[in-house]
Amino acid sequence: MLDDLTLIDGTQYSNWGPDIYEEMRAGGVTAVNVTLVYWENARETLSNLGQWNAQFEQYGHLIMPVRSMADIQIARQTGRVGIMFGLQNCSTIEDDVSLIEVFADLGVRTMQLTYNNQSLLAAGCYEATDAGVTRFGKVVIQEMNRVGMLVDMSHSAEYSTREAIDLSAKPIVISHANPYSFHPSKRNKSDDILKALASRGGLLGLSLYPYHLKNGPDCTLDEFLDMMQHTIDLMGIECVAIGSDLCQNQPYSVLKWMRNGRWTKTTDYGEGTAAAAEWPRQPAWFASSADFPNLVDGMLRRGFDDESVRKVMGLNWYRLLSEAGHVLEKGAMSASCGGN
Amino acid sequence: MLDDLTLIDGTQYSNWGPDIYEEMRAGGVTAVNVTLVYWENARETLSNLGQWNAQFEQYGHLIMPVRSMADIQIARQTGRVGIMFGLQNCSTIEDDVSLIEVFADLGVRTMQLTYNNQSLLAAGCYEATDAGVTRFGKVVIQEMNRVGMLVDMSHSAEYSTREAIDLSAKPIVISHANPYSFHPSKRNKSDDILKALASRGGLLGLSLYPYHLKNGPDCTLDEFLDMMQHTIDLMGIECVAIGSDLCQNQPYSVLKWMRNGRWTKTTDYGEGTAAAAEWPRQPAWFASSADFPNLVDGMLRRGFDDESVRKVMGLNWYRLLSEAGHVLEKGAMSASCGGN
Repeated sequence: MLDDLTLIDGTQYSNWGPDIYEEMRAGGVTAVNVTLVYWENARETLSNLGQWNAQFEQYGHLIMPVRSMADIQIARQTGRVGIMFGLQNCSTIEDDVSLIEVFADLGVRTMQLTYNNQSLLAAGCYEATDAGVTRFGKVVIQEMNRVGMLVDMSHSAEYSTREAIDLSAKPIVISHANPYSFHPSKRNKSDDILKALASRGGLLGLSLYPYHLKNGPDCTLDEFLDMMQHTIDLMGIECVAIGSDLCQNQPYSVLKWMRNGRWTKTTDYGEGTAAAAEWPRQPAWFASSADFPNLVDGMLRRGFDDESVRKVMGLNWYRLLSEAGHVLEKGAMSASCGGN
Repeated sequence: MLDDLTLIDGTQYSNWGPDIYEEMRAGGVTAVNVTLVYWENARETLSNLGQWNAQFEQYGHLIMPVRSMADIQIARQTGRVGIMFGLQNCSTIEDDVSLIEVFADLGVRTMQLTYNNQSLLAAGCYEATDAGVTRFGKVVIQEMNRVGMLVDMSHSAEYSTREAIDLSAKPIVISHANPYSFHPSKRNKSDDILKALASRGGLLGLSLYPYHLKNGPDCTLDEFLDMMQHTIDLMGIECVAIGSDLCQNQPYSVLKWMRNGRWTKTTDYGEGTAAAAEWPRQPAWFASSADFPNLVDGMLRRGFDDESVRKVMGLNWYRLLSEAGHVLEKGAMSASCGGN
């Protein structure tokens, strides 16, 4: 492990609690972008935030909310894990553009324009057809740019993703996915998209969810690192990061919610099948956040220099989050300007 | 006027009250499909239903709710106007397929899959691109067929409309629009769509909203009747009806809600312009429901036979609503089967 590593994971949705937080600390995690919603509407999102406040109240010695970029450094210095909020769907804002700033004020840093299906904003990667970013979607991207919430196209369809990259005045992210060339899943991204993303300064968080990996749970660390190297060659060292997509200790009911929401009367198996409906097994070398050192050590062993490791493991996320200019940062800035 | 005419208007959204109901009675209106929502979500739709219950309680001598097809005849026999409910958007069901039957149980007879913009179900006619009916949309059409709620594509885009016609096991409706060949508005429909609609037994309700008319408010009754004749020639006498789209006595705030919902931060003028943002003036010969006799007399004067007039003015709507097999009808049927 490198000393003083700022390690930022771009996506996790685990069954939160002290065991998970201890694993994060053991793995050297500085901050995590935790998923708040898959299909939840505005009111339900508020309750999910309430549950996080209860976690902060109860486990304040292990975790802390990230309200500003400085909080990420405070988390590192105090040995706690910084928690940022991300939305894997736009269900939270319902049909209301004004809710973007409201949820930014509550700490939301990233929002996906879609989760697999067509949304009011764009097409998801499971739709047969894709007409791109909608009228409302264009308004939303502008507003996200304004308040500093990162546009995330992880679960979006190809043309919609391409349009979002072009429409956004600020770099966007694909917080958790891999190249399609590595493993041909609907969720992985074409080289064309990855190059376009990088050309605008965007970021890809490499996923460790087995359905996004070559050979699934049997993907080796070497195969993953080969893919990482290939992706860096394609996109540049500034544009590749980690979005582990760890979903530890979640019951099957959560997976059903993620796949089916309230939109279907039959069971949709998503990336699984009726015969293999359950959560996939994680690769042995990345079973939890405690295994981040396997990734860091693997990169070092492979000859990545320290600076490259630091970028991929956290600094690229740090830079993009900083540049987004989140509303809470603006508040902090105006407060310090106006103070005495 | 013809005696004993069953006159059904497929769409109205007026500023409801006794004056409007009196005009409907004066015009010989038997039943009206009143719009419940444009952008309202499930909870807001319940309140709108609550407002209608208050109208029924207060003005039960003028109007009555249509809970079954028999109620339409009761309305006619008792000299009251039957009120059916229609949704001009799918916002009411949010992301929840199970809400279709819930709102059918509350009397909703028609639901548009879109209102101008992309919805979770299909593309609206103001979107630049149109990928057709979505995954969720396909589930919804099946469920609407099952519970007997008519699919309405009045505000939908071309390809989405075509797909809905093909996907639906039962005839669908375009409750309020005119042929594009009559007046090239985004809301009017191509001959291809109208022929496809008719080939599956569907229905077009001709609109009297000025933005859907040749020469707008100055459209003459003769021009309207020419268009009606042309449309009947194209679609057949069974497939053409009336959906007046009367929006009487509504303030500009309602028009702004219809056009802008909560989705845009700037003002969208819809069919209007910044210079002509307000409600358009109705044609002099159709200023309110009291003017339905102008339409009936015009048809008769033009040589339409009585049966044709009866079909266009109401029986076509009556037939399609009957054939939809609404859940409330099933309840009535099972009640009479199980009774003694």
